[in-house]
Amino acid sequence: MPTIHILNGPNLNLLGQRQPEVYGAETLADVEASCRKLGKELGVEIGFFQSNHEGEIVDQVHTARTEAQAIIINAGAYTHTSIAIADALRAFDGPFIEVHISNVHAREAFRHHSYLSEIATGVIVGCGTEGYLLALRHLVGKLG
Amino acid sequence: MPTIHILNGPNLNLLGQRQPEVYGAETLADVEASCRKLGKELGVEIGFFQSNHEGEIVDQVHTARTEAQAIIINAGAYTHTSIAIADALRAFDGPFIEVHISNVHAREAFRHHSYLSEIATGVIVGCGTEGYLLALRHLVGKLG
Amino acid sequence: MPTIHILNGPNLNLLGQRQPEVYGAETLADVEASCRKLGKELGVEIGFFQSNHEGEIVDQVHTARTEAQAIIINAGAYTHTSIAIADALRAFDGPFIEVHISNVHAREAFRHHSYLSEIATGVIVGCGTEGYLLALRHLVGKLG
Amino acid sequence: MPTIHILNGPNLNLLGQRQPEVYGAETLADVEASCRKLGKELGVEIGFFQSNHEGEIVDQVHTARTEAQAIIINAGAYTHTSIAIADALRAFDGPFIEVHISNVHAREAFRHHSYLSEIATGVIVGCGTEGYLLALRHLVGKLG
Amino acid sequence: MPTIHILNGPNLNLLGQRQPEVYGAETLADVEASCRKLGKELGVEIGFFQSNHEGEIVDQVHTARTEAQAIIINAGAYTHTSIAIADALRAFDGPFIEVHISNVHAREAFRHHSYLSEIATGVIVGCGTEGYLLALRHLVGKLG
Amino acid sequence: MPTIHILNGPNLNLLGQRQPEVYGAETLADVEASCRKLGKELGVEIGFFQSNHEGEIVDQVHTARTEAQAIIINAGAYTHTSIAIADALRAFDGPFIEVHISNVHAREAFRHHSYLSEIATGVIVGCGTEGYLLALRHLVGKLG
Amino acid sequence: MPTIHILNGPNLNLLGQRQPEVYGAETLADVEASCRKLGKELGVEIGFFQSNHEGEIVDQVHTARTEAQAIIINAGAYTHTSIAIADALRAFDGPFIEVHISNVHAREAFRHHSYLSEIATGVIVGCGTEGYLLALRHLVGKLG
Amino acid sequence: MPTIHILNGPNLNLLGQRQPEVYGAETLADVEASCRKLGKELGVEIGFFQSNHEGEIVDQVHTARTEAQAIIINAGAYTHTSIAIADALRAFDGPFIEVHISNVHAREAFRHHSYLSEIATGVIVGCGTEGYLLALRHLVGKLG
Amino acid sequence: MPTIHILNGPNLNLLGQRQPEVYGAETLADVEASCRKLGKELGVEIGFFQSNHEGEIVDQVHTARTEAQAIIINAGAYTHTSIAIADALRAFDGPFIEVHISNVHAREAFRHHSYLSEIATGVIVGCGTEGYLLALRHLVGKLG
Amino acid sequence: MPTIHILNGPNLNLLGQRQPEVYGAETLADVEASCRKLGKELGVEIGFFQSNHEGEIVDQVHTARTEAQAIIINAGAYTHTSIAIADALRAFDGPFIEVHISNVHAREAFRHHSYLSEIATGVIVGCGTEGYLLALRHLVGKLG
Amino acid sequence: MPTIHILNGPNLNLLGQRQPEVYGAETLADVEASCRKLGKELGVEIGFFQSNHEGEIVDQVHTARTEAQAIIINAGAYTHTSIAIADALRAFDGPFIEVHISNVHAREAFRHHSYLSEIATGVIVGCGTEGYLLALRHLVGKLG
Amino acid sequence: MPTIHILNGPNLNLLGQRQPEVYGAETLADVEASCRKLGKELGVEIGFFQSNHEGEIVDQVHTARTEAQAIIINAGAYTHTSIAIADALRAFDGPFIEVHISNVHAREAFRHHSYLSEIATGVIVGCGTEGYLLALRHLVGKLG
Repeated sequence: MPTIHILNGPNLNLLGQRQPEVYGAETLADVEASCRKLGKELGVEIGFFQSNHEGEIVDQVHTARTEAQAIIINAGAYTHTSIAIADALRAFDGPFIEVHISNVHAREAFRHHSYLSEIATGVIVGCGTEGYLLALRHLVGKLG
Repeated sequence: MPTIHILNGPNLNLLGQRQPEVYGAETLADVEASCRKLGKELGVEIGFFQSNHEGEIVDQVHTARTEAQAIIINAGAYTHTSIAIADALRAFDGPFIEVHISNVHAREAFRHHSYLSEIATGVIVGCGTEGYLLALRHLVGKLG
Repeated sequence: MPTIHILNGPNLNLLGQRQPEVYGAETLADVEASCRKLGKELGVEIGFFQSNHEGEIVDQVHTARTEAQAIIINAGAYTHTSIAIADALRAFDGPFIEVHISNVHAREAFRHHSYLSEIATGVIVGCGTEGYLLALRHLVGKLG
Repeated sequence: MPTIHILNGPNLNLLGQRQPEVYGAETLADVEASCRKLGKELGVEIGFFQSNHEGEIVDQVHTARTEAQAIIINAGAYTHTSIAIADALRAFDGPFIEVHISNVHAREAFRHHSYLSEIATGVIVGCGTEGYLLALRHLVGKLG
Repeated sequence: MPTIHILNGPNLNLLGQRQPEVYGAETLADVEASCRKLGKELGVEIGFFQSNHEGEIVDQVHTARTEAQAIIINAGAYTHTSIAIADALRAFDGPFIEVHISNVHAREAFRHHSYLSEIATGVIVGCGTEGYLLALRHLVGKLG
Repeated sequence: MPTIHILNGPNLNLLGQRQPEVYGAETLADVEASCRKLGKELGVEIGFFQSNHEGEIVDQVHTARTEAQAIIINAGAYTHTSIAIADALRAFDGPFIEVHISNVHAREAFRHHSYLSEIATGVIVGCGTEGYLLALRHLVGKLG
Repeated sequence: MPTIHILNGPNLNLLGQRQPEVYGAETLADVEASCRKLGKELGVEIGFFQSNHEGEIVDQVHTARTEAQAIIINAGAYTHTSIAIADALRAFDGPFIEVHISNVHAREAFRHHSYLSEIATGVIVGCGTEGYLLALRHLVGKLG
Repeated sequence: MPTIHILNGPNLNLLGQRQPEVYGAETLADVEASCRKLGKELGVEIGFFQSNHEGEIVDQVHTARTEAQAIIINAGAYTHTSIAIADALRAFDGPFIEVHISNVHAREAFRHHSYLSEIATGVIVGCGTEGYLLALRHLVGKLG
Repeated sequence: MPTIHILNGPNLNLLGQRQPEVYGAETLADVEASCRKLGKELGVEIGFFQSNHEGEIVDQVHTARTEAQAIIINAGAYTHTSIAIADALRAFDGPFIEVHISNVHAREAFRHHSYLSEIATGVIVGCGTEGYLLALRHLVGKLG
Repeated sequence: MPTIHILNGPNLNLLGQRQPEVYGAETLADVEASCRKLGKELGVEIGFFQSNHEGEIVDQVHTARTEAQAIIINAGAYTHTSIAIADALRAFDGPFIEVHISNVHAREAFRHHSYLSEIATGVIVGCGTEGYLLALRHLVGKLG
Repeated sequence: MPTIHILNGPNLNLLGQRQPEVYGAETLADVEASCRKLGKELGVEIGFFQSNHEGEIVDQVHTARTEAQAIIINAGAYTHTSIAIADALRAFDGPFIEVHISNVHAREAFRHHSYLSEIATGVIVGCGTEGYLLALRHLVGKLG
Repeated sequence: MPTIHILNGPNLNLLGQRQPEVYGAETLADVEASCRKLGKELGVEIGFFQSNHEGEIVDQVHTARTEAQAIIINAGAYTHTSIAIADALRAFDGPFIEVHISNVHAREAFRHHSYLSEIATGVIVGCGTEGYLLALRHLVGKLG
């Protein structure tokens, strides 16, 4: 059974508490539960992880190199500033999907550039927390 | 039963013939068939349209104002150059998803900016022709 | 009796329906009626035209070369993207006034540059649909 | 009877003497006379003012806050360099029209940006000294 | 006998009438006649086409995919604004030459960038209408 | 007893009347009174000055060269456009603090650059009219 | 009794040792002591924190969401590079003041932009370590 | 006997007192004396003027239109910010030389652009106060 | 019999040896032979020259002022960096064609700008070494 | 015996595993062994450290302030994004050499700027893992 | 008797022949004669030199290091492109004046930047060939 | 025995005389001697060359194509301006190392970009004249 790791960046631990008009009312635990539920349906193992520390996300991508076949990553603010995470993903052999809950293109200019997009398999933005599920569905298809 | 219009821009009529290493082997008719099939499952009416003419896409967005509750648009090259299409979409009241088959962020710099993204509900890129289906699934959830 | 052609670009057919807080409640037919009424008062023939197609606007400027002595043009979104229309206007010998109903300088940055302004006789923005009438008045004075 | 102040910036005292091929042969006194004549016809009081000093134009906009219902301003070179005048106009409650006699978009690049346009009600350029009269006509309609 | 399609963009229908000091006195029909005459000498079939509509030029490039072995294109103003035409040409397998009658580098800055040049086989500018004939000669050599 | 001059630039005479949601309800006379009161407490003489004229502010900085040991300056809009005032301050030997009532970094982009900041001793923004008092307190400590 | 958290970013643990000509001779412990002393006078509880780790500062801002009513932050180098910290502060409901000991505007260009300033309540730079005390004084007034 | 006006901009009244390592020890009165002395030798009348007010310099250029045959101008900081003065000089028919005492190209980047240089007859920088005398010599030769 | 000088810049002496996939297998001697052969057919004298030294190319353009009626120049890398050669060509009265063997627009960004193009009669790129012959043909027509 | 600390940034723990065509087949342990071996030959103590965490690298530079006389640093991706590490190095008194295994100038544009280079003693790029040894050799010479 | 070297760059050997409306009718020999004549009057030895070769100008600046006390340089087009000449001048201990016959600021944008100006003692532009004499006069004063 | 050519660009003939605080006290002859000495130890033939002429350096790179297996180049100022030298090096098959004696990244902005770096094997800057020796050592290892 393939494994997909879902990695979440800074401030996503506040999901459901911070700016609900932008991010919705679901918590990150809710997202994890939905992903695990869909993963079970689709026959994949889910790893779920969050950190506010850039270095820990790099570490976690390294872990995924041996433990997962695909990655879903919502790197939050590090999307726009972290070449380190992008380089870690360059060293990951499987496909990965970049997800953003809100539509980053409709927000501040500094959120329009992503260091991850140019090396991602695909990018899903603005579909709310359902974006994780769409990514999961797509990756399972790809791995299958 | 709600209606979703799927609009396709220039050169997408060549899908399956042009650069299959970038766009895959499916034709636009294949995409239409998959969309109609999923639409039926999800209980939505599908409109499907392609044009190489910017003005016709503007016209078609206008048509959708009265005939559809949501739009999926892959505006092809016009994504990067057409304010006219973006303005037409500004006049559309329902949600719309911008789809790109390939990962535009991994290609030429002039494909990195979209006039549509800042006003889209969501954007799905690089998920191949499955992107249309993911968008459909998301919009049906939103409309439901 | 001199003739003045009034050309309208993409999405202006929605006038009165789209974003009334920006563009007002008058329809394009209302604008045409007001222009024809003032034209009659001032003793000029009015041609009135709208298209969502860049190429048709180019064609219509070509027509004006033999049928009109002056042009009023609200090129809508093509103002900011169409060198083709600007080149057609370069080939028109009479004066032309560029009109915008809303104040484009108070809106998105991509609406601040016009390919037409540098070759226009004059530019009138933000005076609502009365801008057409002010332009008409000015051109009639110039032609007289 | 409403009052409209017409403010003129640096070098406009030379109107009619300086570069007549750009600005025409009329003097500023001629412009004032035409404005007063049309004002009388339209039933508005006219205030008319010129200064080469940025600070005096700021002062005069402050005066207009209590003495006028609308402003017409041709700020000349200060259009492109004065945030102070723009801030004064931000503190004026009524509508104001920015006028330029010549078509600034057809001249040097440093004349293409105006600090006033983004806060103006409307902008009229390139219609010669008739631009003041068109602005007057528009503002009277707005105030009426 | 190989076929070469010669495609002409917006405003080129005015050739010989518009700005003869820039474009010369020959009409597009004259150019077509010269091309057909040289084509006959060199043993190639000529297709000749003009449109003011971006979408029609895209369509015509698609037609050339099955009907021609090479393309000569003077896309006029669309040279600088149309990614759609460039993408159509990306889907054309044979060589194509970009031609401009005037020297675009000696004109306005917005004419200095071409979306076509980076994918063209060659580019010939400033050689007047003879540029078409030089391109023809070069392509026949290439196809031979 | 040391003397500190407090200089205020264009439109600050409107304080309390203009955009109270940005600048608060206090008038400049209120600010002067508060400064004089705190000055008395801290044992410094206060000079207080406002002008809408760039040249007068330059003159006043020159005056401060012989009459004051430190300057507090809120140059208003001239902050962003006046090298002349900055050069006058370069010729002032004592410390000076740049104050802005509102948080200029949260407003229009043209308010983000200050010609004064790079030569100021310190900069205090967004602390409302209390910013003057904080600056006073700091300078008195420095002079003491 | 309200609580104010004072957060310090990378290299501030070296205060008093590193470049004393820029940062002065006081250590961070001295600053903490001064802040606690003034806090006691003003009747507020002080939390004081330093880290070289971006993620820990994000964590600490999250802590402040429930434990403090206001924040003073000197994010050091992360001021210019960390969207993650700025996003954490966006999720903090109370006021916060950005402090820099040295005048960052008088130093390298990369220190002129701050991701925090546009969302800060206020910014105090160049007032040495007294900047913390001025900020404290201002926030206590605001909370009071 | 021809007349040459020598105009000096903001802060030049401090010459000899401000930054003598940049501007030297001579006062503006010394410069005036040297210019008058050389003017007498060369047989030209000298007008000499200084102001910290942009508007007064505009006024003075207007005066020179009828009273002088040539201008020497050291506009100080207004060199880099005043289109108003440049426009006044555009309305002056005779030759004018722009002078700077220090080498502006060796100083801050904002001193590298001059609104005057593109319309000046000549520019002399970095030759100290002798620059005025060299300019005088050159203009007398030109007028002679 | 008219004379045409053909000037070749740095590294073109390596033609046929360096990157044959970019520049082809012909040597510069082959190009010279082809040019001389076609020159003979068309009745023009050919001068042929190559140098790796910018100054020698300047000298050779000067020589052409008295010895040739037209120039063909492939300035190689100096195309992008030499204002000196461009200035020499400004002093040449006859027509000149800029030739590049490869399509410079398809290569590194620093090859996209040419100091020569804006003053050239025409530019031919990407037609291989046949570009010289096309240029020759065009110039002979022009001179004839 | 002097001590030199060798600091390695994010993803360098993957050396030998990640993109061997870019970084070679040696592991970081191999590099450490080579450095220790050469250090022994040259008579210096070696400290060797790697972290994916920006903050830990800052901490480690602080440690080196008291434990080492020189630093060799390959900050990996943090080279391009970390002002915090650069500021830590500003507080280090001895010389430091910046090393990159691959030639960063031949890779993506975002790898061309380094926050460290402007304050480094020297920079060695593209010499593979031998770069560490060359740096060691140079620093020993400097310290000796 | 001090010696001053006068160095002239590319295309200045054409002086008097090339674009006399820009550069005047005097030849470089005329300029040399005038300079020698004034040199004699002022009691300085003159060296006079021209080359179209950047390297020769570098060599000549090196020669001046031992043979001259000051330099006047009109580097022509190399002004805008040669860091090599600027570096040679950095190694020259005496003062040097940069001269341009025409007003480079009134010409193409690429002539507005000079690599020499920031290190020159002074710059004299637009004073025709008299610029050399003014420079000579200034340098003799400086050396005296 | 392999041969390595060491090429030096403009002004390096002044080494030891010019700005010794930047470049040290060694002359170029000293550097040559050290290189020859180390070459002998490592068993490679050394060619050593300096020129102030861009064209001669191009010529010398061409010579190295047949006479050397590797190149060390310190192109001095041409590093930043010469595409011609870079193109010559593109035609050299062996490895080459770019060396700079000083740390160019700590100097003027125009020294931060090198046309050579993107095609070099490696780059060594700021290691003084020892940089040549480190490069030699590296290349011998590579060739061995």
